Amino acid sequence: MTATDTYLLLRAFCDELARAGVAHVATSPGSRSTPLVLSLVREPRLRAWSHVDERSAAFFALGVAKATGLPSAIVCTSGTAAANYLPAVIEAHEARVPLIVLTADRPPELRDNGAGQTIDQLKLYGSAVKWFVEVGSHEWSRERERWIRTLASRAVLTALEGRPGPVHLNFPLREPLVLDAPLPAAAGGRPDGAPWVSSTPPAGNPPAATLSGTRRGVIVAGREERGAWRGVGALAEGLGWPVLADPLSGARRGAAAIAHYDALLRDEAWGAAHAPEVVLRVGDLPTSKSLRTWLAGLDAEQIAVDPEGAWQDPAGVVSRRLDNLPVRAGAADPDWLYAWRAADRVVVEALEAAVGADLTEPRVAVELGARLPSAATLVVASSMPVRDVETFFPLRPDPPRVLSNRGANGIDGTVSTAFGVAATATPEERTVLLIGDVALAHDIGGLLAARRLSLDLTIVLLNNDGGGIFHFLPVAGETDAFEQHVATPHGLDFAHAAALYGCDHERVEDLGSFRTALDAALATPGASIVEVPTERVANVEAHRRAWEAVRAALSAA
Amino acid sequence: MTATDTYLLLRAFCDELARAGVAHVATSPGSRSTPLVLSLVREPRLRAWSHVDERSAAFFALGVAKATGLPSAIVCTSGTAAANYLPAVIEAHEARVPLIVLTADRPPELRDNGAGQTIDQLKLYGSAVKWFVEVGSHEWSRERERWIRTLASRAVLTALEGRPGPVHLNFPLREPLVLDAPLPAAAGGRPDGAPWVSSTPPAGNPPAATLSGTRRGVIVAGREERGAWRGVGALAEGLGWPVLADPLSGARRGAAAIAHYDALLRDEAWGAAHAPEVVLRVGDLPTSKSLRTWLAGLDAEQIAVDPEGAWQDPAGVVSRRLDNLPVRAGAADPDWLYAWRAADRVVVEALEAAVGADLTEPRVAVELGARLPSAATLVVASSMPVRDVETFFPLRPDPPRVLSNRGANGIDGTVSTAFGVAATATPEERTVLLIGDVALAHDIGGLLAARRLSLDLTIVLLNNDGGGIFHFLPVAGETDAFEQHVATPHGLDFAHAAALYGCDHERVEDLGSFRTALDAALATPGASIVEVPTERVANVEAHRRAWEAVRAALSAA
Repeated sequence: MTATDTYLLLRAFCDELARAGVAHVATSPGSRSTPLVLSLVREPRLRAWSHVDERSAAFFALGVAKATGLPSAIVCTSGTAAANYLPAVIEAHEARVPLIVLTADRPPELRDNGAGQTIDQLKLYGSAVKWFVEVGSHEWSRERERWIRTLASRAVLTALEGRPGPVHLNFPLREPLVLDAPLPAAAGGRPDGAPWVSSTPPAGNPPAATLSGTRRGVIVAGREERGAWRGVGALAEGLGWPVLADPLSGARRGAAAIAHYDALLRDEAWGAAHAPEVVLRVGDLPTSKSLRTWLAGLDAEQIAVDPEGAWQDPAGVVSRRLDNLPVRAGAADPDWLYAWRAADRVVVEALEAAVGADLTEPRVAVELGARLPSAATLVVASSMPVRDVETFFPLRPDPPRVLSNRGANGIDGTVSTAFGVAATATPEERTVLLIGDVALAHDIGGLLAARRLSLDLTIVLLNNDGGGIFHFLPVAGETDAFEQHVATPHGLDFAHAAALYGCDHERVEDLGSFRTALDAALATPGASIVEVPTERVANVEAHRRAWEAVRAALSAA
Repeated sequence: MTATDTYLLLRAFCDELARAGVAHVATSPGSRSTPLVLSLVREPRLRAWSHVDERSAAFFALGVAKATGLPSAIVCTSGTAAANYLPAVIEAHEARVPLIVLTADRPPELRDNGAGQTIDQLKLYGSAVKWFVEVGSHEWSRERERWIRTLASRAVLTALEGRPGPVHLNFPLREPLVLDAPLPAAAGGRPDGAPWVSSTPPAGNPPAATLSGTRRGVIVAGREERGAWRGVGALAEGLGWPVLADPLSGARRGAAAIAHYDALLRDEAWGAAHAPEVVLRVGDLPTSKSLRTWLAGLDAEQIAVDPEGAWQDPAGVVSRRLDNLPVRAGAADPDWLYAWRAADRVVVEALEAAVGADLTEPRVAVELGARLPSAATLVVASSMPVRDVETFFPLRPDPPRVLSNRGANGIDGTVSTAFGVAATATPEERTVLLIGDVALAHDIGGLLAARRLSLDLTIVLLNNDGGGIFHFLPVAGETDAFEQHVATPHGLDFAHAAALYGCDHERVEDLGSFRTALDAALATPGASIVEVPTERVANVEAHRRAWEAVRAALSAA
């Protein structure tokens, strides 16, 4: 077996990845991975993005795949390099994002015996991947090329079909790792650029169910990155049902959408008075605790549209699962949707007054919802920003797309994910990241993409010097350990981070400055940080004031 | 089951960890982990170190365990937090470092059904841990307290015994997560602070083997962090054998130690002329490629002292394994050791002349070897620094301890490991990290320990703006992809990183400034970066000149 054998087969493999729709690969440096990396970089239909940290590379590729709906690839060398992929691989599994994980390995004779940079990579990601293949090493033959073309086709189809997710192919590679002669011309795959194996999805959509005799229903629309459920708006308008629309669903728009269900349902009396007969759930279950509590307590038929088998039902209240949106049925109760819409408008006004014009965390969420161009994508970090966006993002006819790593809800890799989204955007489709200081500190190395990859990203940083969300929880009272081990203040001056990574940076203290800085950042190429200093305890008070104002307004209405 | 049940059992668990010798725990923020974190922090015999990034936390704890030889603990919340531990867990497995991994989890009723921040944590680390336990949730009882005390004892003993390594305990925790009443006084464990279960190691050492009739042997001493093989010096002197001593063995000292085997054995003729009849291998196989090649080609009996079952023998040349150092045997050939020692001295002089007084990467390794106080610990990063230290570190009677993450040879987590080592040091025992720019960029977030944990660490940064080691490999000729995807230059000005994390920083351009800056850094509390700018291509030339000079000197001698 020669390097030529390896490179011939890898060239065919990469050709098939491209034919199957893979368009981006995130690389990381290493030696053992040389044949894989060179073959990927030399495939002209793949855009190769270099990352020093494999954890960042994997979250970057996750962002690419979330933004495009198509699998992206990651490639790393042997050893703990591959272990650094695990957080993003798990997020891809939980969020059902297709990802092609390619790891270089030492061959069997160099494993577990003191050869350098060698770990047990077989089934390294355990239950988090849909498919694992130990690729082996091979002499080129016509038969073997067919096999590896099939392997690439199958990897992409497996990542996409059914419940999407990551697949892992492990490539043992032997020295020599570079070619000593030019590679012969490519033998080629199927004619006309077709993939080696194509797959026909089931003919048409699954049959639509009928909901009969129901007059009062609600649709709960949660995270769905490919926008599959944007059609719920039309369905809801036909049914006369409200859509409680998480911004992550893409459905917070149109005449039936309810934006402020989180605030509304914090008023238990209002929630009890507006109990539906049926709940239709599409996408992931939204984060809102008031919504989750309300759903768990309803005496209603709950139906999940769940073609990917996500089983988003911790309360165990769903009694029926569907593969597709049901067709309309039953006569609408005109007062029902009207009552929800009227209440939502009451909340909008109460929130607007309560949030006020100070530059608080709720205000930033409102502003982004109102000001971001329709063509923008907003990436939202866990834990507080995604909640603030859910609570405060307004209803508008043309909302920007909102993405978030809400499979496992980690704060890790958020910056890198946002850069991955940015890698898929045109100059008009600006990418904006809303992130807190702890998540930024966690993935600070992700900012290296700003220096190395020339991508456009506007980072809106809410800096309250610690984990603001924990102040909402009972643990905040455990004062012997809370600050140091839970809130974890760090005192970082992110202006230095911006200087390190070549980002613009501006700290803004009032609403006017924020608007000016945000608009300027959106109009400027490259990466920039618009930093909003806030205060953790005051932030809890601002939220509680807002909820109290909503409750008072609903009582008065 | 109440929070009191949970906290009573966790208090007993933490009490047992401390009784069994665990002294340090690295925490990370989260909500689900609250009972675990509070119980650990409240155990007065544990020092709790807070980290924002779980990957850093795990490498920090690895550093603590490497430096002390005792297990350290890590604790994180549910979700991808736990996935970020994997790189350090694998390094601990490969390097045989005891580590107690404590992960909080959601209970079974909140798994895989849309509850937040929940992933499949069962056997998350696969084959990298020695023991996995799903701890479950329990009402307190006398019997259950005995069980959990046994569990803690057993976790520590399992991590330490036989082949040391990590163990993983997964704790499903239910709300409420904080106590609503003070905890009753502790029931207590065994009298006199004894652990619940103690374990008697096998009586005495395993019987020592006898090597009969051998006159020409060499001892190869590789990485062994607990200094178990420092006794090889006396054995070697008695046998009249040279010790080819990796600095990571602690054995590069004394009358039989050979420091410059890497340079010596690059001269194949010299190596062939000095082939031994027997090779005794202790510790891990050193990194040196010339040594590995020489060992693989020898027609000699090769014996591995390998009580931990590490099987460090990729060439498959070991024919005998021992659990303990053999006793001396046979009459020494006085010329044999003399020839090695004389050659080593020739190399010292040739290297000193070839390395010269310019501030190159080899010169920095020489300087650290000569100047670091005996009480210091030097942590060395992969990939070039560990090789430079192996090649250039001088022989001296009182060398500093040298540690390196050479289980899986990753560059990840190196900064955090060094801070973990620093956490175990007294003010006199300064910790120094020798690291390249790519490894520093990879674990840049590890510098947050400088700001938050008040530890003393001197970082000597070799900054050649990319992965210098790759220039030694054939891939350097693949110019279409080499710079962007393999060398990965980043242009980082680490002065900004120092400002971000509150480290001192000095860039030095000549040897005198380096010495002054190093001495100043060693005398100053806190963290500092002494940055040495170098150049990747010039670095290859400097190394090749040094090896050529050694070859010429050996020919002339």
